Parts: sequence; structure tokens; C-alpha cells
Amino acid sequence: MKAKTLLYDKIAADIERQIAGQVLRVGDKLPSLRTICEQYNVSQTTALQAYYQLEAKSLIESRPRSGYFVHRPAKRVLPLPAVSSPDGASGGELHEVISRVYRDMGHSGAVPLSLGVPALELLPVAKLNKGLLRATRTLSGSGLEYEQVQGSDHLRSQVARFYSGEGVSLSGDELVVTSGCMEALSLSLMVTTRRGDTIAVESPVYFGILQLAKSLGLKVIELPAHPQTGVEVDALKKVLAAGKVAACLLISNFNNPLGSLMPEAHKKEVVRLIQHFGVPLIEDDIYGEVYFGTERPRSCRSYDESGLVLWCSSVSKTLAPGYRIGWVAPGKFKDEVMRLKLYQSIAGTTITQEVIADLLETGRYAHHLRGLRQTLQTNALRYSHAIAQYFPKGTCISRPQGGFMLWVGLADHVDSVKLYERAIKQNISIAPGSMFSLQGQYHNCMRLSYGMPWNENIEGALKKLGNLII
Amino acid sequence: MKAKTLLYDKIAADIERQIAGQVLRVGDKLPSLRTICEQYNVSQTTALQAYYQLEAKSLIESRPRSGYFVHRPAKRVLPLPAVSSPDGASGGELHEVISRVYRDMGHSGAVPLSLGVPALELLPVAKLNKGLLRATRTLSGSGLEYEQVQGSDHLRSQVARFYSGEGVSLSGDELVVTSGCMEALSLSLMVTTRRGDTIAVESPVYFGILQLAKSLGLKVIELPAHPQTGVEVDALKKVLAAGKVAACLLISNFNNPLGSLMPEAHKKEVVRLIQHFGVPLIEDDIYGEVYFGTERPRSCRSYDESGLVLWCSSVSKTLAPGYRIGWVAPGKFKDEVMRLKLYQSIAGTTITQEVIADLLETGRYAHHLRGLRQTLQTNALRYSHAIAQYFPKGTCISRPQGGFMLWVGLADHVDSVKLYERAIKQNISIAPGSMFSLQGQYHNCMRLSYGMPWNENIEGALKKLGNLII
Repeated sequence: MKAKTLLYDKIAADIERQIAGQVLRVGDKLPSLRTICEQYNVSQTTALQAYYQLEAKSLIESRPRSGYFVHRPAKRVLPLPAVSSPDGASGGELHEVISRVYRDMGHSGAVPLSLGVPALELLPVAKLNKGLLRATRTLSGSGLEYEQVQGSDHLRSQVARFYSGEGVSLSGDELVVTSGCMEALSLSLMVTTRRGDTIAVESPVYFGILQLAKSLGLKVIELPAHPQTGVEVDALKKVLAAGKVAACLLISNFNNPLGSLMPEAHKKEVVRLIQHFGVPLIEDDIYGEVYFGTERPRSCRSYDESGLVLWCSSVSKTLAPGYRIGWVAPGKFKDEVMRLKLYQSIAGTTITQEVIADLLETGRYAHHLRGLRQTLQTNALRYSHAIAQYFPKGTCISRPQGGFMLWVGLADHVDSVKLYERAIKQNISIAPGSMFSLQGQYHNCMRLSYGMPWNENIEGALKKLGNLII
Repeated sequence: MKAKTLLYDKIAADIERQIAGQVLRVGDKLPSLRTICEQYNVSQTTALQAYYQLEAKSLIESRPRSGYFVHRPAKRVLPLPAVSSPDGASGGELHEVISRVYRDMGHSGAVPLSLGVPALELLPVAKLNKGLLRATRTLSGSGLEYEQVQGSDHLRSQVARFYSGEGVSLSGDELVVTSGCMEALSLSLMVTTRRGDTIAVESPVYFGILQLAKSLGLKVIELPAHPQTGVEVDALKKVLAAGKVAACLLISNFNNPLGSLMPEAHKKEVVRLIQHFGVPLIEDDIYGEVYFGTERPRSCRSYDESGLVLWCSSVSKTLAPGYRIGWVAPGKFKDEVMRLKLYQSIAGTTITQEVIADLLETGRYAHHLRGLRQTLQTNALRYSHAIAQYFPKGTCISRPQGGFMLWVGLADHVDSVKLYERAIKQNISIAPGSMFSLQGQYHNCMRLSYGMPWNENIEGALKKLGNLII
């Protein structure tokens, strides 16, 4: 694949230079794909990928039935949200709107901007189905027998192999397969905390983490976070030094909902701190594969040698949510995690583990990810541009470098729970900001997912949503 | 199916009368299968089923390459174990042998008499594989999308329909799909108890329940149980009246390890008691489908109108352990169970739920169960006879009326943990009695599974095991 990648990179770079040097000016029509194919002696796919890349960088735009044009920059660039400033308390309740959003998700028909998952159209359905058929043949007992508590040898070794290519050193024996990333987080919290303990998380934080923490009887300290670099390390240091927390739970790469990416220096420092204070770090790295840069960002775990980092991920955001395949590398908590997994559900589903192992082994997962990242990066820009175009004054927006989510701030007087109510009547589902805190914060914010393929429907929904903001 | 069933029932009844009337005497050769086919104008399969039925009742025996003979009764009938008498304490620790038995299970090669699962040969592999293929076609999104928290509508309605034929009145909406029966028990305990609470169980009790209870910080009162009728109701009443327990967890039908079956009158009384004292009953009914009588025994839940019974079951013992499909009808705890399921793992695997739903809907599950019950009933007798033949003086044995397990008591001086060590060296795995109590009881007992098809290997293993008892 390397040669091909270089080829469309080269084409894109050529055109980028022409735009930078004003050889191609704003509004100019670009050479047709056929011209590019002839000029560079490449396939239509390669030409298209070069244009996708330029589109993702917002340098060009496609106009239906007309071709590609040098981009007319958005009329305005929306500012970033401010660094969050939660109040440091550890109490608070889940906002009631969470259960309503969940209920409404079940109703089909609404444009699901509230969902944090890729649309089915973006998933490799046929490849997975073929994998299932193959698994019934290759697995002894066709997957009817109990899998090991730790999970399939095949899957664990393939996950380890996949990440070794991404710079993560990991052996299959260090992993425990779980029912999605959520069970990985759940088991990790159960083995590192006890009822009444306090955990530290970024603010805003994925509501599923708040729900899980509450159900385990845990208190939550919400830490200030920067929309691009994630948790404020000084704030984390302060709560660690105060001896207040039993564990930290951070989404290091492309945080949900902020889309932030912890810089490598921050990751190193966070790992140094948790080691110094002897506090386990549960690292939710479920979005790590959906990077828009040139390579996968590292995990905090990759800087850890103490065994205090419990690294959690899954294929639910990139491959097959319904398969419920995730994993945790629990460091020194491995035995306890396995014991709990055994006691609570014996083992995971056998056959779906084999299918995922097969997709990893054959390189089909890596191939699929390349396309998915491209699509999502383009989506992120298209959704962002539409928001810039249709949302009123006072709007700010995150600039995710990966993942599925936009975090949108609105003028202070806007109540996004009320906006939710107006929107759902128009068949548009959003995730109001209040879902992402226990402290009544973010009343004027919302999370929007760009996991749905871009089309007129989505654009129409964003336009309608903009009009509903009062 | 009804007409066919009656036909082989009729043939079996005819021959049973001839044996009872001494027309056929002990040791006599029975008519060949071909003769039966001609005489009754039936297929070979029907003739064979009639003979299987007689064999299961121990009235006839097959001798390799010779045909069927009126049975020579076992030289001795082993007595039943006594009613258990745990000491009423609520403390105690898990016996260390549990983890060793688990570790040894992983090693292939040993005759797995310690396992509580049916051998692969007894499972409908081809039917399930076809179901998988069908599910990829019929499911929207081929099962890649998140299933509902509560579980698939199709599966829940088919489970409800299946049990309505078994006299259990249940709607699909009352069920929550879980990752096997173990997650059903785990969620049920989590919503009915808190760390430090005490639960009441039968003694001896499936070690998985003890492990789960310990991991949740629960204390356990072990109640005396009769090897045929299960928990002693008076003892249960006493601990309920003393206000000592937060929940009861009972295996009502074909208890693991005793094989006991609570009489209907006991079930009614147990339900009356838990209602009277307002204590939830978690009913583990995972073996209910494997009955050797004429019909499925009822569940405690079927006598309950208070919503205090949480009825748990699965297809792990009868269809596909590795699919991890179970369910709970949590009564009035349904909302809490669903909330916890959502928080801890979002939902179950989509596609395997569809496969099981399909098997239920088409009647293939019911058909499979008929054969499985027949085989296991015959196995129970064959294993029991071999034990009577090969085990030393002082042996007593349960007489299961369903399920997979024999509970074997040995002379008081025998230490079954040491027996385990001797047996595993001979490649035979057993479950020592000490696994089934927190109080150091049952040192001279063991659980043996008859889920492996009967053959010379098994007979040889039982003979060897008998010789190892010293």
C-alpha cells in the first residue's frame, strides 16, 4: 500500500502548491479526474483519493455534477470553546435529559446527530459477513464452546500485532477481551476503586462514564480540559497531590465529547504523575484509530512501565458495534480483571472474537480504517462548515483532530435541553451539554456526531437546527 | 411430531409390559430392530427410539454387536447422599482447589468429568451455523449495529412464546437478555443486594455462585438441602424470619450439583415465604429444559405475582455455551437491571441473539431438546451404573431427574481434593466437593458431569477413578 499512498500524496501536494502559489485561485475549477489520471498515469481511485485529501484539508470543494473547485473559505471561522472550568466538587447528579435522549434514540426516523457511532454505510458489512462464515469453518466447534475467560488467543495475538505496527508494544497475554470498551472500563473501575471512592475525569466527559461511576457508588471530580489538548495537567496534579482520588479515567486520544488530543508531553507527564502518586489511570483509547494526522497518536500506556495504566479500547467505533468486542490491557490488575470477568459472565462470545481476529490478521481492518478516517475527516470539515454557515452569533466549535464528535458552544442564554426538545420534534436528535457533567455545566453546549455520511439531509438538518437556536 | 412420539411410546410400553409380565426375562435377547420395524410397520429410527427409551429406564441394555437384552439389574443400588447439614455460619472462604480445577480445564486431553456443559457432539452445530448465515441476511445491518439494551425484540418474543408452550406465562417485554445465565445472576444480585449483605443458597451450591457473591462483597448462608427435593423449606423459613438475608438464590430445577428438583408444593411455599418476608428470590433455572420426566417442571416464578422473583436462564447448557445468550425476567427490578446492563456493557451481541431467536421460532430448539434429554437421561443411568460397579464401599450417589450432574459421596475418610490430584495425573478431571461450600464441607464428595457421550473411554475413566479412591 505504501507506494500507492505516496502517489496520491504527491498529486495532492502538487495541487496544494499550485493553490498556495495562486496558480489555482479561489473558485477555479480543478482539472477533471480523467485529466489527473492521464497526467499522472494513475487510476481513477488514486486521483479521487488525492482530491479527497485536498477536500479534507478544506482546500477544494466538490460541487454536484460540476466537478472540484478551489474552496471559497467559510465566511467566518468559529472560535474554539474556552477551557472548561468545572467547580471542583465531587458530588452532583446525572441530568434527567440523558434518559430522554436514550429513549428517543430508539425511535427511528430522527437524524441521529446525538449518536457516537459510525453509520452502517461506513462499516465493512460484507467483509464481516464473510468472516463469520469462515469462522464457523475454522473454529473448532464452530464457536459453540466457551471461549477462554481472557478471550481468544487468536484475537489477542492479532490485536497485539496490529498495535505493534502502530508503535504500541503489547503482547497478547497482556490483554483481556471484554464486551466492548464499556465492559473494559467497568471491570477496570471495579478492580481499582470501591464504593464511596472518588475518580477524576475530564470535563465535559462522556455521560456513559458518569452513569457507570454513579452505578458503582463512585464520586466524580471533573477536571478542566482544553478543547484541543485535553485535561489540564496542573489541575490533575493538584487533585492527585491532595490524595483525593482512587483512580483517574481519561480519554487520551480524540476525547468524547471534546475531540481533544493530549500532546505526547502531556501523556508523559500524566503517566509520571500517576506513578508518583500511585494512582491507577484507566485510559479510554477507543477513538485512537480514527486519527486525521499522519499516524496514530500514542497511548499513555505506551509511556508506562509501572503497570498502573489500564488501557481500554474496542472495535465498536470503527467496525462492529453490535459484535461487542473490546479489550483491556489491565497492567498489574490483570488477574483481578480476569477473575471478575469470569465471575460475572464466564467469557465473551466465541465466534465474533474470531471474526475480528481474522479481519485484523488479513489486513482488512487496516485497509478499512484508511477509508473510514478519510471519510470522517471530510465529514468533520463539512459538518463544521455547515455549522459556521447556519448557526447564529455566539457559536463556538471544537476542532477535532480525530474521532466522531463536534462540541458546539452557543450563546450563554441558549438552553440546549430546550433546543433538544424543539429539535426532536423536527426529527433531529442532539446530545445536550448537560449530559456531560454532574454539576449542571454546559447548559448552552451540545455534542454533534459526524458519523453519518454527508448529504443534503444532514445539511438540511444542521440548517434547521441553526434556525431553532433562540 | 406428536403422532411419531406416540408410536415409539407405544412400542416401548408393549415391551415394558412383556418384561413386567416376565414374557421377556432378565438376560433375554430382544427382537432385532428389523423385526420391530416389520412388526409395527415403523422406520428404523422409531424402533431405535423405543429401545432408547427402554434403555433410559434401565430396563434393557445394548451389547456391542449382539443386540439388546433385558437388563441384568446392577449388583447393588447405591444409597442417596444424606440431607446436607451446613453449619449456618455466613462466613468462610472459597476453596483454593477451584482455581486449580479451572486451570486444569484449559489443558486438553483430560476426560472432563468436572465440566458442567454438554459435549460438542450433543449440540446442533450445523443448525446454528445455518442460522448464523441466515441472520446476516435477515438482520438489518447484518448484526453490526448496537442491539437494544433489553435485548432483541425477536429473541425476547420467541423466548416468551417457547415458555408459553411449557406453561410459563411471560411476555417478551418482561425479559432482559444477558451474556449467559451468569450475567443474569450477576445483575440480579447487584440490584437486590449491597456489599456486606447476606444471601441464602442451597448447600452444596454451584461454586460460580459463591465466587460471584464473594466478588460482590456478599456473605453467604448455606441452607440444608435434600438430594432429591432441594432446599429444606423450614430452614429457609428460619433464616427469612430472622431477617438475616437480603436475597435468596436457588436453583429450583435440577440443581447443580445435587440434581435435586423442588416439588411444586415446595416452590409454592418458597414463593409464599419470600413474599411474606419481602425478600427477593433469584431463581437460577438454567437446567429446567433438561428434564427426564414427561414435562418441564414449573419455575418458582410461575407462582409469583409480587415481582419479587428474578427468573434467570440461558441456552448455554443446551445449545451454545460460546454464544453467551441468557436472560432474566427481573420482575419489579427490571428497570434497575436494564440500567446496570446499559452502564456496564451497553448491550449484548446482536447476531447471536438473532440465531437463537430463529432456532426457537422454527421449532428446531424444541426438536433438539427432545434428543438431548433422551441422551442425557441414558447417560445419567449409564454413568450411575458404572459408578455402582466400580466405586468402593461407602459410595452414595444422587439420582438426578434432569440436568447434567451426579453428586457422589464417598466414605468419610476419603479426601476428594487428593483424589482430584491423583485423577488429574491420570488425565481425569473431577470437581471435588470442597468447591461447593465456603465452610470446608463435602471433603469426601465430588461432582461428576455426564455431559460427555457414553463410550469405552468414559467407562474406563470411571473405572480408573474408582480404583483411585483410597
